[in-house]
Amino acid sequence: MPRVPVITKATVTPVLISDPPLLNVLGVHQPYAPRLIVELHTDDGASGVGETYGDSVYLKAAESLAAAVEGRPVTALNGLRDLAYESAGFTDDAPEFDPAGLRGRRSDEKLVRSVVSAFEVASFDALGKILGLPVHALLGGRIRDRVPYSAYLFYRWAEHPEGYPYEVPSDDWGEAVDPAGVVRQARRFVEEYGFTSFKLKGGVFPAEEEVEAVRALAKAFPDAPQRLDPNGGWSVETSVRVIEDLGDLLEYAEDPTAGLDGMAQVRERTGARLATNMCVTGFDEIPEAFGLDAVQVVLSDHHYWGGLQATRELAAICRTHDVELSMHSNTHLGISLAAMTHVASVVPNLNYACDSHRPWQTEDVITRPHRFTGGALDVPDTPGLGVELDRDALGALHERWLRLGVRDRDDVAAMRVADPGWTQPPLPRW
Amino acid sequence: MPRVPVITKATVTPVLISDPPLLNVLGVHQPYAPRLIVELHTDDGASGVGETYGDSVYLKAAESLAAAVEGRPVTALNGLRDLAYESAGFTDDAPEFDPAGLRGRRSDEKLVRSVVSAFEVASFDALGKILGLPVHALLGGRIRDRVPYSAYLFYRWAEHPEGYPYEVPSDDWGEAVDPAGVVRQARRFVEEYGFTSFKLKGGVFPAEEEVEAVRALAKAFPDAPQRLDPNGGWSVETSVRVIEDLGDLLEYAEDPTAGLDGMAQVRERTGARLATNMCVTGFDEIPEAFGLDAVQVVLSDHHYWGGLQATRELAAICRTHDVELSMHSNTHLGISLAAMTHVASVVPNLNYACDSHRPWQTEDVITRPHRFTGGALDVPDTPGLGVELDRDALGALHERWLRLGVRDRDDVAAMRVADPGWTQPPLPRW
Repeated sequence: MPRVPVITKATVTPVLISDPPLLNVLGVHQPYAPRLIVELHTDDGASGVGETYGDSVYLKAAESLAAAVEGRPVTALNGLRDLAYESAGFTDDAPEFDPAGLRGRRSDEKLVRSVVSAFEVASFDALGKILGLPVHALLGGRIRDRVPYSAYLFYRWAEHPEGYPYEVPSDDWGEAVDPAGVVRQARRFVEEYGFTSFKLKGGVFPAEEEVEAVRALAKAFPDAPQRLDPNGGWSVETSVRVIEDLGDLLEYAEDPTAGLDGMAQVRERTGARLATNMCVTGFDEIPEAFGLDAVQVVLSDHHYWGGLQATRELAAICRTHDVELSMHSNTHLGISLAAMTHVASVVPNLNYACDSHRPWQTEDVITRPHRFTGGALDVPDTPGLGVELDRDALGALHERWLRLGVRDRDDVAAMRVADPGWTQPPLPRW
Repeated sequence: MPRVPVITKATVTPVLISDPPLLNVLGVHQPYAPRLIVELHTDDGASGVGETYGDSVYLKAAESLAAAVEGRPVTALNGLRDLAYESAGFTDDAPEFDPAGLRGRRSDEKLVRSVVSAFEVASFDALGKILGLPVHALLGGRIRDRVPYSAYLFYRWAEHPEGYPYEVPSDDWGEAVDPAGVVRQARRFVEEYGFTSFKLKGGVFPAEEEVEAVRALAKAFPDAPQRLDPNGGWSVETSVRVIEDLGDLLEYAEDPTAGLDGMAQVRERTGARLATNMCVTGFDEIPEAFGLDAVQVVLSDHHYWGGLQATRELAAICRTHDVELSMHSNTHLGISLAAMTHVASVVPNLNYACDSHRPWQTEDVITRPHRFTGGALDVPDTPGLGVELDRDALGALHERWLRLGVRDRDDVAAMRVADPGWTQPPLPRW
């Protein structure tokens, strides 16, 4: 009988990836965002890769888990969450440690799940390579061969502000701070990648200006679905006004206002379809949110929901409750994008184009970075995730992490570089 | 790159397995129960087996699906439900075809899921054998190495009644129609299999008599958890009375009364933990049931919930809603028992001993039938399900199916053999 492959070594490599000055309700993206690359080696000589959030707390928990998985079967995924709790020294009843953030509540549970996801994905990648099966086949097989993504539009500056103690990245996209700039950005996205739907990150300017941007997009691309996501930046009143102003132009309104009660009020007053990656980001938040009808579309994210199997479970929960499913993204590299594409290919009720920040990240740690065509990615049938680690690139981005000393992402602090008086805006901002 | 194995042939073999005269609220088990054995062959030369309900409607749908899966990758599980609908000629909006039954509502959806489960299990078995991995490893790995089962006690006659047009099976268990008989049966179960918890199928006699049986069991086995399941046979008043009479003796009360409203009333009046395999047997029944707090324990059953992946999904839903999970069984053979054991080993929140009718079925279609020790089964680490088809046994049970002409299980009709005036008792019966 063949032996089950065992993990002989697990490494966690923190990297910094360059990021443009993208604006959101809290502030602006830093020049460099931390990210973790997890690599698992097995006694078959195979290896697998995973990727997740890279801030200090994630790094610490990931390093603990890396030590704990050595010697375990690469197939032992169901026990990873408990192992991560144990290795990190967390207990089940820890309080939330940060009630606010762009990705909703922060808690030990979510941190653990985000870390576990990278190990689960790396395990699937290694197992797939050993068995000669694509990751989607290990998840019951793809039911679609292309996964559509939406163009993730951002208000942005042309350049990062002066004042960083290191050289900052630059690009040729120019600024987008008004409807014309947003449409210009969208046109380039369409030309280069063929996207057929748009998501605009809002909450940056007074809601009326953002409404005008969506109107301009709809005029320029009359058949394309539009989304607007102010990250909970609007009051209930503003949310209702925006939704009434935009009418059917919006495919869904994403986190118009912060908190379940506000979302439920907006829903009740407008009947609009509301999506979230802020007020429902963990399984324990589901019963109340669904009970209040506060959320009609949940944004999956295999990182903080806990992996590819957990994403399937979230999908089943949504299906059961007649709640729709879409997919959230954060600043990420190609390993995450491969995992997102595999899991999106197996979930029947993922009926929206997925979010991806990917076009904004021009660096990668894989040898053949993805390129969207027709606004979509092919689902690979090659073994594992279908990506190959570029060790030189990984080394260079890790060296940057060592050199620059940036350890956490903080959009508020980044905004203070441009505007020394900036503090975290209380929500609702508009 | 290794190729994904493809299904070259799928066979469905209906069999009849001998069954004792076990009593329930509707009537009595027939001498022979139909069951389906699904076998998938792949172009690697591997094969896998699955098992499900065997009545005519299941056979027909299974035969349609068998023809449809040929030529598909053995990993293509996520598309099986839609394929089964299509091949059976069902549509998504078909009405329920039988609102009542021991396993709850019957519908095309449930029929399709029951049939799909056998193909999914057979696919996992084949894939596991090809890859050298146990089925549990294909589900993310076992988190327990033993799966406990409860002793499934039945009121029963010593022999099937006279009047069948064929020879009927017989055994040496004797009758159990009173507390002493139930305790005698339980003692033998404990001696032979080491069970440490008990489930009595009730609804057969006036509730007071069944309460006495549970009291006698609790006296004889003071540390063993007890369950009583009248299959919805009691009124709300009777349910409340039984639960108040038995107090903490019951681990949970299973389907004391029929229907969500009645269950919710019993819950409200007693605060007791209520389990079901009747009023929640499909994903679409979950929101209302959980919303009413009508059910505190859902009985999984990989057959009608749609397979091993679907069972994981059910488990995630229950976990999310703080509803507990147990496992239902119907008359079954060793292939189903192997699948039950694998899936039970990967679900963290399955905290009750599973049901299994297995001790009552003395025939099997595998070469080494399971034997409970210490009331549990070891989770096998051998490739696939860890069972081997006994072709001679399968042939003999299929020949019986051909010869006897019994096509469906009908406990009401079986009771009429003993009592010609018997009709289906309306619920509540007591």
